[in-house]
Amino acid sequence: MNRIEVCFSPGEYHLYEADFQLVVVLDVLRATSAICTAMEHGVKEIIPVATVEEARTLQAQGLLAAAERGGQIVDGFDLGNSPYSYMKPEMKGQTVVLTTTNGTKAINMAKDKDTVVIGSLNNLDALCAWLIEQERDILVLGSGWKDKFNLEDTICAGAIADKCLESGRFFADEDSTVAAKFIFRSSRDNMFAFLKASSHRRRLRKLNLNDDVKYCLTPNNCTAIPILKNGSLVRLNHETVESASV
Amino acid sequence: MNRIEVCFSPGEYHLYEADFQLVVVLDVLRATSAICTAMEHGVKEIIPVATVEEARTLQAQGLLAAAERGGQIVDGFDLGNSPYSYMKPEMKGQTVVLTTTNGTKAINMAKDKDTVVIGSLNNLDALCAWLIEQERDILVLGSGWKDKFNLEDTICAGAIADKCLESGRFFADEDSTVAAKFIFRSSRDNMFAFLKASSHRRRLRKLNLNDDVKYCLTPNNCTAIPILKNGSLVRLNHETVESASV
Repeated sequence: MNRIEVCFSPGEYHLYEADFQLVVVLDVLRATSAICTAMEHGVKEIIPVATVEEARTLQAQGLLAAAERGGQIVDGFDLGNSPYSYMKPEMKGQTVVLTTTNGTKAINMAKDKDTVVIGSLNNLDALCAWLIEQERDILVLGSGWKDKFNLEDTICAGAIADKCLESGRFFADEDSTVAAKFIFRSSRDNMFAFLKASSHRRRLRKLNLNDDVKYCLTPNNCTAIPILKNGSLVRLNHETVESASV
Repeated sequence: MNRIEVCFSPGEYHLYEADFQLVVVLDVLRATSAICTAMEHGVKEIIPVATVEEARTLQAQGLLAAAERGGQIVDGFDLGNSPYSYMKPEMKGQTVVLTTTNGTKAINMAKDKDTVVIGSLNNLDALCAWLIEQERDILVLGSGWKDKFNLEDTICAGAIADKCLESGRFFADEDSTVAAKFIFRSSRDNMFAFLKASSHRRRLRKLNLNDDVKYCLTPNNCTAIPILKNGSLVRLNHETVESASV
């Protein structure tokens, strides 16, 4: 039996991470949904950086760069973290530098682990099928909002924990995992309505991003599993599955 | 309108505390349930200290001292944090020094605030009636387990938030508050069963403390509201209500 646990946000990562070398990072609204979508639609590589300054430096070196803060595209960048912007044909084969309020911070926090993969509701079933095959202990890390708990990442983390636990090959010890699974099960039939009261939904509604929210809450419209390799996110395909399990 | 929010554990207190001068501290299993019970049964004063060493020092000075770590009474002490031990007739009028794994740490963390009161399921209705009267912003702080989220404090925090919000005099902004309220509403008809999967229930079951758990999960068997005054917890009664609102 392997263990799977949920850590709600980067602020608590230090309390949970010691037992795990495989971390799944989530930022459902919208960074990791955008990353999964990008890989699905042929983006070759995403370089997650923690700060806008790093993104600017790499942009000045000629790289395509995307930056989001507080839900909006940062001045001086053409791309943010809307999944739709990564579906465009001209994005195929591109390398993109990406910094976001919460998601890229969480990815960078986990980067010393043997394996870091990117999750979302969009790639839920494909990701869980792969996770179950690994026979390793798994930490699911929500990006939260500025180190605080958020509902949408918790729902997605609960969905991943639930699917893995249902395989019969995992156990969970933490109350955070029990709560995430419970919140997922209670919300799965109507996540959009369930999240009406959530703080980030309110934030994005003000910015007219309801279409993005609906997309991000749609399970299984992708099969891509992004994985961190030498500081870049690339698509994990069947050829690389073996080498991913260090 | 005033604001009420839930902070799951001391580890996230710094993210939430800035906006609040009235903090409710919870450690349902078992420190704050024991403190409410003690005040209800006539204990005069409880001095919460963060460390076993402080408790030993005050014990050596002749004070009655109680110490719990990992669910058990610490060697050299006669009392821990079982509510039943504070109901005994010989406890009436006593001053007790108390240190526990999580609860007294959370109380000490909040001690610089204008008002710190102690909550539990045991004093739920009396506490909420008083909170609603105050017309102040309220932070409900769970003690968690070693800075991690726990289910029982979240249920109780959700119950307090739910009652205050239902009065129509409060609003909430944080996802943690939405989640706590939801978990309370889902569990209220059978908390004991709901908590079966919780980590601390398992910990206490091993120690044969099921009677304590049942007592702590019984709403409204107390009306006492303990309040922190000059470093000591005393019973808030009608005479002190005015001076409590600084």
